Amino acid sequence: MADLARLVEGQVEGDADRTIESIQTLELAGPQDLSFLNHARYREQAEASAAGALLVTPALAPGLRRSASASQASQDRDLVLVADPTRALAQLLPLFHPRPARRPGVHPTAIVEDGAAVDPTAHIGPYAVVGQGSRVGAGAVVEAHTVLGESCEVGEGAFLHPHVVLYDGTRVGAGCEIHSGAILGSDGFGYATHRGVHQKVPQVGRVVLENEVEVGANSTIDRATLGETRVGAGTKIDNLVQVGHNVQIGRASILCGQAGIAGSSRLGDGVVLAGQAGVGGHLTLGDGVQVAAKSAALTSVNPGVTVAGIPATEMRKWRREIVLRSRLAEFNRRLSELERHAGIEEARREDRI
Amino acid sequence: MADLARLVEGQVEGDADRTIESIQTLELAGPQDLSFLNHARYREQAEASAAGALLVTPALAPGLRRSASASQASQDRDLVLVADPTRALAQLLPLFHPRPARRPGVHPTAIVEDGAAVDPTAHIGPYAVVGQGSRVGAGAVVEAHTVLGESCEVGEGAFLHPHVVLYDGTRVGAGCEIHSGAILGSDGFGYATHRGVHQKVPQVGRVVLENEVEVGANSTIDRATLGETRVGAGTKIDNLVQVGHNVQIGRASILCGQAGIAGSSRLGDGVVLAGQAGVGGHLTLGDGVQVAAKSAALTSVNPGVTVAGIPATEMRKWRREIVLRSRLAEFNRRLSELERHAGIEEARREDRI
Amino acid sequence: MADLARLVEGQVEGDADRTIESIQTLELAGPQDLSFLNHARYREQAEASAAGALLVTPALAPGLRRSASASQASQDRDLVLVADPTRALAQLLPLFHPRPARRPGVHPTAIVEDGAAVDPTAHIGPYAVVGQGSRVGAGAVVEAHTVLGESCEVGEGAFLHPHVVLYDGTRVGAGCEIHSGAILGSDGFGYATHRGVHQKVPQVGRVVLENEVEVGANSTIDRATLGETRVGAGTKIDNLVQVGHNVQIGRASILCGQAGIAGSSRLGDGVVLAGQAGVGGHLTLGDGVQVAAKSAALTSVNPGVTVAGIPATEMRKWRREIVLRSRLAEFNRRLSELERHAGIEEARREDRI
Repeated sequence: MADLARLVEGQVEGDADRTIESIQTLELAGPQDLSFLNHARYREQAEASAAGALLVTPALAPGLRRSASASQASQDRDLVLVADPTRALAQLLPLFHPRPARRPGVHPTAIVEDGAAVDPTAHIGPYAVVGQGSRVGAGAVVEAHTVLGESCEVGEGAFLHPHVVLYDGTRVGAGCEIHSGAILGSDGFGYATHRGVHQKVPQVGRVVLENEVEVGANSTIDRATLGETRVGAGTKIDNLVQVGHNVQIGRASILCGQAGIAGSSRLGDGVVLAGQAGVGGHLTLGDGVQVAAKSAALTSVNPGVTVAGIPATEMRKWRREIVLRSRLAEFNRRLSELERHAGIEEARREDRI
Repeated sequence: MADLARLVEGQVEGDADRTIESIQTLELAGPQDLSFLNHARYREQAEASAAGALLVTPALAPGLRRSASASQASQDRDLVLVADPTRALAQLLPLFHPRPARRPGVHPTAIVEDGAAVDPTAHIGPYAVVGQGSRVGAGAVVEAHTVLGESCEVGEGAFLHPHVVLYDGTRVGAGCEIHSGAILGSDGFGYATHRGVHQKVPQVGRVVLENEVEVGANSTIDRATLGETRVGAGTKIDNLVQVGHNVQIGRASILCGQAGIAGSSRLGDGVVLAGQAGVGGHLTLGDGVQVAAKSAALTSVNPGVTVAGIPATEMRKWRREIVLRSRLAEFNRRLSELERHAGIEEARREDRI
Repeated sequence: MADLARLVEGQVEGDADRTIESIQTLELAGPQDLSFLNHARYREQAEASAAGALLVTPALAPGLRRSASASQASQDRDLVLVADPTRALAQLLPLFHPRPARRPGVHPTAIVEDGAAVDPTAHIGPYAVVGQGSRVGAGAVVEAHTVLGESCEVGEGAFLHPHVVLYDGTRVGAGCEIHSGAILGSDGFGYATHRGVHQKVPQVGRVVLENEVEVGANSTIDRATLGETRVGAGTKIDNLVQVGHNVQIGRASILCGQAGIAGSSRLGDGVVLAGQAGVGGHLTLGDGVQVAAKSAALTSVNPGVTVAGIPATEMRKWRREIVLRSRLAEFNRRLSELERHAGIEEARREDRI
């Protein structure tokens, strides 16, 4: 275990020579396993766990040396103290679960069209289609049934899971990971309405993902009307997220599940959209802006500000408003009491509650 | 018609010997057709319908023996009285519309990789891919273009529509039905953020669907970081639903369209998430909890409680608050009147409404 | 440029003989390019743009003849005055970006099943599947991996992008465009619950798209239980939209990204659902109804009315309520002052804010 601890710059409390066979959840871990505790809310499970060793912060560590597990009650447990157990997990898991290697080469059922260039170290899976003039970089993986239109680029080491679609001209940077069902480069939603008829504005721009972007399953990123829809390096996008045409997203932003961004908005670096959040069109969210779950940013937001609500306001204001809203019945009673006190005629008002 | 009535434990009012040729909507049904009325809101359409027979509750039946249809005005109509017309419909429709049979066998264009085992009574459609070590059970159907990764299991009689993706290790129980575009086992959304860089936490768990689960089109269920994301037997999931990593869902729950559950939350048995509802991460929703449409459960909810709003509170409280919110202009007027009455200076306040 | 101006019924201010090489965004356009300004919010970018010519409304035109671009500061710019620059864009872009032609014919890897009829001028891409008895009309395009079930119809000139799925019996009208990952005809979400078990109500109806409908990437439209789910001519649907079973949508409606409609609701002509809006089941939204972003129409709405909020009310009322909600702390202070003034005991109330 000492070597694992060294790798995560952790400090061992207990037996540094313990052998770790795998990493498991608190529930599934046994004496040969390493588990982790990264939040006080799971303290009880950690105490009850039969895990032989735990990744844990110094603050949560006290009292965890002895397992309360029925089967392991008498057994001592070892701890690896780290500043961030989740980060340690990110560092250690690949040792126990290396990503399955993909054989270089093009599957015989895959179609690589004229003028497409696939690096000999890349993997193209069954039934994949690589369109004319597209390029797949060194070590990239294009899995089964994934379709690249014409003139796409897939960067070095990028990984496209099965059933991804890249429309013509899409660029996926090095080290990106695109999950199944994600659609990059579909037409933006743009129409000119004239006498009740919606005439399509051709969408002739493209989508560019910079390096190390992850896109979740069944998310959609529309091509620009003109120019580019762009997602900055290191930004991570969850499942079922919608990114409208001409949106610009900065670096290292986080878009959680089912979030959506309407056309032409600009998000800075390190922006966080929580689950099911929405951002209106033509807005600017500065660096570090956070939009709370289920909230809708309908105006631009200054850098560093966290907003919540529909329409979203500063989180602090929204929290206060939520509490005040829960007091409306009380306000009504106080009004009635004041009116009685002042001798104001109640009959004029309807009291529906 | 007597045999149909017997099958649904219904009581015929009228001609039990009437021949029923098909089941139709109230609008489309003619004298040879059976239709149904399961809610008072469609009473008028039922009266106007030319349907020769109706499945209806005893409470809604009176007055429906005679059709008010222009074309059928003079015709008597027969009724089949049942406690639950929708249930009767579920029982009768398969007689008139048996599910199309799929030929057992593997389509010549399908790819079954080494060590995969397909039961001889199963159907594997065109261009489907069954990965190494995966198993497809008796009578199961894997339709066109569906991709099973490595070491997946598809239970007896399960039905996977075209364009489903199962990532490695996914288990689909017996009798499950998975609609097109559903992605099971995609990576959970987990990162350790260190100095502004989001480092991926490898997602090495899996997804398990117990028996008789239905998953709607383009829904996504993420694999666990470690361990399992699990959906209990008989749970039904609509389209475009997101289920985060490590979520545990009990038996016979209902997740309506575009609902979403953030990571590690636990839902009990018989939980209902209405359309576009959201559930935050690391929460517990007890058995029988219901979350109203467009609401967001951001704290845990006790068994049997129905919640609504953002953040969700008890439905009763939320309803009251909605009414009170609509009275805010009135509250403001009453405050102003009291202030006038008390001689309090109005000028100090801004009155923006 | 004179010919372009004529095409859009625009009036040239400046050099009508200028040569236009392409249409570009304000940021990317150079002296040989035409760009456009359709909203005052982009005035500054328009001034700074190096575009040689601009499509602009007469109202926004004054002062734009001279570019403020650093590189082009001394250069005059030409304007094309039009009533609707977006419409002009829709008219001109196809000249510069004609849709890539698809070769008529069936790709050798595509599967056209028995009794299917593909017009000789249609294009069927690699690995596409056209099920038994399906028909693909003249000039229609069915791209790679798209799957048509049995007895589907694809109208003249319709364009199905890669990875679309049509379940059995789906009809797609002439001139429709269906983006990747869209699923048409998946089962509606209908169960009869009896003693805690959800028994599936077979969904045996179908989906009909009238002519010139567009459906965005990964959107889902469920088949009817009986009869039809129908989308009227010229209606445009964005990405990740859910349309429930038996929904009827009128002509020229607009459903923005991630909007959802529960089963059996009816939308009139020219209805607009903004992003992430929801519509409950069994409701009627009259012609021209608009539902604001992130709002939920939970009751029927009369023609021409714009609603917002959860539950949605008239936009005007909702706007007023939003302002009043932001004044709740003020209301509380005013109540306290009145109570002090009246000598009412404060101790009885809790003051949590």
